[in-house]
Amino acid sequence: MESNHTYQQLAAFAKAVFLKMGCTDSDAALATKVLLSADLRGIDSHGIARLVGYVRLWELGRINATPNIKIIHETPSTAVIDGDRGLGLIVAPRAMEIAMEKAKQVGTGWVSVKNSNHFGIAGYHAMMALEQEMIGIAMTNASALVAPTYAAEKLLGTNPIAVAIPAGEAAPFVADFATTTAANGKLEIAQRNNTTIPLGWAQDAAGNPTQDANILKNGGALLPLGSEKEQGSHKGYALGSIVDIFSAVLSGASFGPWAPPFPAYVPMPENMPGEGLGHFIGAMRIDAFRPAADFKSNMDLWLNRFRNATPAAGHDQVYVAGDLERAMEKERMQKGIALVDGVQNDLKALAEKMDLNFDRLFKIKME
Amino acid sequence: MESNHTYQQLAAFAKAVFLKMGCTDSDAALATKVLLSADLRGIDSHGIARLVGYVRLWELGRINATPNIKIIHETPSTAVIDGDRGLGLIVAPRAMEIAMEKAKQVGTGWVSVKNSNHFGIAGYHAMMALEQEMIGIAMTNASALVAPTYAAEKLLGTNPIAVAIPAGEAAPFVADFATTTAANGKLEIAQRNNTTIPLGWAQDAAGNPTQDANILKNGGALLPLGSEKEQGSHKGYALGSIVDIFSAVLSGASFGPWAPPFPAYVPMPENMPGEGLGHFIGAMRIDAFRPAADFKSNMDLWLNRFRNATPAAGHDQVYVAGDLERAMEKERMQKGIALVDGVQNDLKALAEKMDLNFDRLFKIKME
Repeated sequence: MESNHTYQQLAAFAKAVFLKMGCTDSDAALATKVLLSADLRGIDSHGIARLVGYVRLWELGRINATPNIKIIHETPSTAVIDGDRGLGLIVAPRAMEIAMEKAKQVGTGWVSVKNSNHFGIAGYHAMMALEQEMIGIAMTNASALVAPTYAAEKLLGTNPIAVAIPAGEAAPFVADFATTTAANGKLEIAQRNNTTIPLGWAQDAAGNPTQDANILKNGGALLPLGSEKEQGSHKGYALGSIVDIFSAVLSGASFGPWAPPFPAYVPMPENMPGEGLGHFIGAMRIDAFRPAADFKSNMDLWLNRFRNATPAAGHDQVYVAGDLERAMEKERMQKGIALVDGVQNDLKALAEKMDLNFDRLFKIKME
Repeated sequence: MESNHTYQQLAAFAKAVFLKMGCTDSDAALATKVLLSADLRGIDSHGIARLVGYVRLWELGRINATPNIKIIHETPSTAVIDGDRGLGLIVAPRAMEIAMEKAKQVGTGWVSVKNSNHFGIAGYHAMMALEQEMIGIAMTNASALVAPTYAAEKLLGTNPIAVAIPAGEAAPFVADFATTTAANGKLEIAQRNNTTIPLGWAQDAAGNPTQDANILKNGGALLPLGSEKEQGSHKGYALGSIVDIFSAVLSGASFGPWAPPFPAYVPMPENMPGEGLGHFIGAMRIDAFRPAADFKSNMDLWLNRFRNATPAAGHDQVYVAGDLERAMEKERMQKGIALVDGVQNDLKALAEKMDLNFDRLFKIKME
């Protein structure tokens, strides 16, 4: 069962929760906008469904609602920032602002972040650059759910990469993907529906192929993009490694199997080599390479050529990265966002715990 | 059948060929070193087997042996260079030198290159940064062999990405991979052996799955990393797109289906939107983020943890990106490089055409 809500209803609720945590009004508004961009774009696992998880980490003291985010090392084109255990939803946009400021000065800006937390969808932060006629890049490490090629251990997170590239008249290119074959959210859907998962998504505790959607609870692991060696899993493993190193080794965050877990009930790893989660954020001014008009006109040609490619048998449209999410955002902003009962109930319980009037915040039900 | 040669023999031959093309002595030496780094590292498709192809492009006037490589646009952290139709083997190292010079000044350097040609293996250029305690990044676009997810057309090249990351005591991290499920060289091996290819590597002209190793000659296409949508091919498609845009749209090279083909017999695409092939080269000083000693000690911890991970059933070692290529390089430098008869015969014919004494250059046969 699902219930449908307007974006404004969910936003009012999320903002009220962040305010109760002690965020400033502007931070609560920003955290809400970043969090709900996931729901709007159809990445339901990273949106309001995670709000309860953020609150639990705040209760444990692992999230600081009023962080003193500061630059601890910098050059004209780089910085490392200490997120002071802030919400990644707040820390990452600040990192992108610094990256864009540096790009304005010297062409590009690159910010590695330590001591942060889950930052929502990578795509939000990358897309911030589009308004400034810049290419935006965002990645983050995450707690270990993924086994390297040939390994029986979980050593990497789903470590997503987002790249947003502006265009002229055409809608921009916005890639945002986990460096695994399938995101963990897809396994959760299979668990809810009591179905198996395709081969190539996960392995069991010994490293054998499996179709068991519950395998991660029994020592199994997600597989890197490519699934197995013959299909290129060493490439997905390399990509996940690069994200971990740029986000966490370069900043002084905790990396690999020591990345802090998101679920509050999972104990923190022992002997953590750094502080918190890490992100890596980049901005490149397009006119640091070519006159912006030349770039945009070539980019429009690129986008139109790919969007108008001849479809394969059984398909009627070729998409560019970000097209489906853009269509989803438009639809959900108009028609509302459906929450499954589990999420709806979690939010009701959260409202009670935080002494919020759930019915008032959700009063204009869409159905 | 194969014949074995020392690195020095192959290098003497390749350098003699580049000199005959009119390269300066130092350019011929550099082009040789870059080209043969592929043979040493086990990427046979990109090494001396391609020498004949470079010569054919030079005969057609598409490669300029004495290019005037110049910066046409720059900021403190960026540049675009015009390769003047030079060998990519020469142009890309020059781009990396510029990137590293900028990184010395402002922390990072990013160079997009137009009007270039095939640059050998991406890993060579990325690894140049290691000696300077920098992270090196190299990518290139290439002629279209790959179909986007849901497309029946070839619109992208195999568009490789290389990332080299220095460490302290441990051997460095060196990723270098095509953004496809399998490289074209693997299909060529299957063609030679008259075997089929695994599902997931290629599709036929209509976009259906195929195991035919010859399918690219009949309108088929390679598949992006991930193979099909359910296994994440839209992620490999996005990666290949990013490489194409950074390398060619950002520089003014020709992109997508208009990238110039490597085989001289393939006609140039019509209405090319830019000049030549494009590359994208980056360098980031590690001490632009953290004190180098801190980074290196954490990076050693990272590398040792992954190399000592528990292997999956049926495997006895977990590797980090670049480990197998490093072992191959050591072995081939000692034991020599085997050439299949086809390549050996091509080189003999090339020697005759260029009036080189093949037997003298190869006189110290290893077997």
